[in-house]
Amino acid sequence: MRPVSIVGTGRLPVQKSCDKSLREMGAAVVHLAMRDAEVTEVDALFLGNMLSDELQGQKHVGALIADEAGLRGIEALDVRAATATGAAALRLAYLAVASEQADLALAVGVERMSDGVPTSVLAKALDAEREVVNGATLIGQNAELMRLYRKKYHVPADAFVNFSLNAHNNAHNNPYALFKDKVVTREDILNSRVVSYPLRLFDCSPICDGAAAVLLAPTAQARSLSHHPVRILASGVATDRFRMSDRKDPLFLAASHHSALKAFRAANVHRDDIDFFELHDAFSIMACMILEAVGYASPGEGWRLAADMEISHAGKIPITTLGGLKARGHPIGATALYQACEIVSQLTGCAGPNSLISPEIAMMQSVGGVGTTVITHIFAL
Amino acid sequence: MRPVSIVGTGRLPVQKSCDKSLREMGAAVVHLAMRDAEVTEVDALFLGNMLSDELQGQKHVGALIADEAGLRGIEALDVRAATATGAAALRLAYLAVASEQADLALAVGVERMSDGVPTSVLAKALDAEREVVNGATLIGQNAELMRLYRKKYHVPADAFVNFSLNAHNNAHNNPYALFKDKVVTREDILNSRVVSYPLRLFDCSPICDGAAAVLLAPTAQARSLSHHPVRILASGVATDRFRMSDRKDPLFLAASHHSALKAFRAANVHRDDIDFFELHDAFSIMACMILEAVGYASPGEGWRLAADMEISHAGKIPITTLGGLKARGHPIGATALYQACEIVSQLTGCAGPNSLISPEIAMMQSVGGVGTTVITHIFAL
Repeated sequence: MRPVSIVGTGRLPVQKSCDKSLREMGAAVVHLAMRDAEVTEVDALFLGNMLSDELQGQKHVGALIADEAGLRGIEALDVRAATATGAAALRLAYLAVASEQADLALAVGVERMSDGVPTSVLAKALDAEREVVNGATLIGQNAELMRLYRKKYHVPADAFVNFSLNAHNNAHNNPYALFKDKVVTREDILNSRVVSYPLRLFDCSPICDGAAAVLLAPTAQARSLSHHPVRILASGVATDRFRMSDRKDPLFLAASHHSALKAFRAANVHRDDIDFFELHDAFSIMACMILEAVGYASPGEGWRLAADMEISHAGKIPITTLGGLKARGHPIGATALYQACEIVSQLTGCAGPNSLISPEIAMMQSVGGVGTTVITHIFAL
Repeated sequence: MRPVSIVGTGRLPVQKSCDKSLREMGAAVVHLAMRDAEVTEVDALFLGNMLSDELQGQKHVGALIADEAGLRGIEALDVRAATATGAAALRLAYLAVASEQADLALAVGVERMSDGVPTSVLAKALDAEREVVNGATLIGQNAELMRLYRKKYHVPADAFVNFSLNAHNNAHNNPYALFKDKVVTREDILNSRVVSYPLRLFDCSPICDGAAAVLLAPTAQARSLSHHPVRILASGVATDRFRMSDRKDPLFLAASHHSALKAFRAANVHRDDIDFFELHDAFSIMACMILEAVGYASPGEGWRLAADMEISHAGKIPITTLGGLKARGHPIGATALYQACEIVSQLTGCAGPNSLISPEIAMMQSVGGVGTTVITHIFAL
């Protein structure tokens, strides 16, 4: 297969409510990513969006945004994997370039969650006939996981606080982060209201609007398009049993484990080679379980990486280095493209005051549903 | 890129209302396609479905069906292109195998349209803010195209009858066709009720339930998996201006033209090399315009291919050889996978009494929206 690199990025600041329409948001980041690489044409656009069917009454979003962006005639397809949708768009753009079916392919994510009440729409990531019919929601199932985790591993009540604190600290110098100006203390987190016991408000990523895009090209041509191209070393997807209740151990995220293994193998790297990890901290418990599934901590010990601040820039495995889903925001279909843009900025030394010191290899992971689909990508300069 | 072949197919009979659930329909065709190639594992599943968000309250359908089919841990992603969704699934499975990211990839389409009223959900393929808000529907826009066509080219009122007649004739010996037992006469078509002037009932494909799948493998391994593998010579996607009203000539399907050109170039074939053409006859006017866009007829002359029965098995360019969308049925996300299964059956001499005489090269085309997205595939033994 043909090696693939990122040669351009574009993103809008994450907002509670963006004053652009869905199509305008998409076209804006398409233009930013293309301008970044100084190209005026692309071959294909893969669009990630999860909620527009219901919230905007709009399907066929990829073609709509291609038209709005003035990209006449190109391939445009919609791709999805529930809450991992942005990473699915990245993967399919990667397949298009790797297979030589496209030389320049955009992965675009856009989500406007402010146009309605997304909770019941998000729940469609779960099993409509066997879970949602009984009242299941994403937040409820994550609360159940935290309850199970706390019970099984006897962790203290404040075990997860630093996931949120680290994310908010790291969002401060990220101009695209929803909570870039918010000062959050340990007490704010511990005293925040219970949303779904035992999940508190600060355990949960926010509802928001956002759009982001990356432009992919063959690695062999990347240097002619970008001063700082970033190689995609690997892309791996795995699924678990669809319903949490069908899994032998719901506290082990098998799809996170297996998609990371696939990616490590393809990239020929070990998890200890990863300099930072943009993971899917939609809920603090999910961040904790991902660290365990990928092997950075033993079962029941993931929270200690947070408690000991091994997840900070100076720690063993820095995560959510520019705010993560918690503090940058989680506009679903766009989230993984924000992660990819942030990884490019870190690897190329453009992350501002939040820059890591000379990182070389980065990993990102996106979770669809409650651990059902997990998509892992590995990047390097 | 690595050449790709179809090594297995599976489909359910199209029905007005299937007694299986969405997931059961999907799992059934997955098992049929895998059994056809005698494999017990696959690497990836690309799922095409357009309406389940609303009609079944279900997103994340690829992972759901992978789980239901017992395919533990595999990659499963959802793909879409409005009413061309099934072809998008085929294309992405093709990219996965071509890029060497999967050795065995399933393209699966499933749609249950009987669980609700699909008209308003189908209209989400159009522009929600600028078309649907003004009352636009897919059927209304196709009626407008037929009206414009009849006016511009002064065609007789019965110009399109043979599109429907040919499709119904060809459905008779297709056990998977919705209207396999229906005897339809020229008078039935001409006297059928007006659905949206000037479209009559028999100009329109039916609302129905269906599921179909094809299994793809590298061409180099295809013979070890199938006695009659079928090569995918090309896969091409193009888009047009999103809204019909923005196109210079709404009667010219630019995306059909360009995606066919892309595919001809990639396959290194000419349109005259195509032995039969499974096109997107969701409406008779669409079949007519596609024949013109691809170059089988001059503008305003496509209907003559039908009138002269050049679209029948003995004609210049046989279309809808096993019933097409009109008479086999058009369960949206599954439609292109039915087309692919039918092409395999024709190319391998397994199409029963409807078999063409030794066809070698086949084309299929799927249309998303009213000509906005068009996906072309070319196949050969």
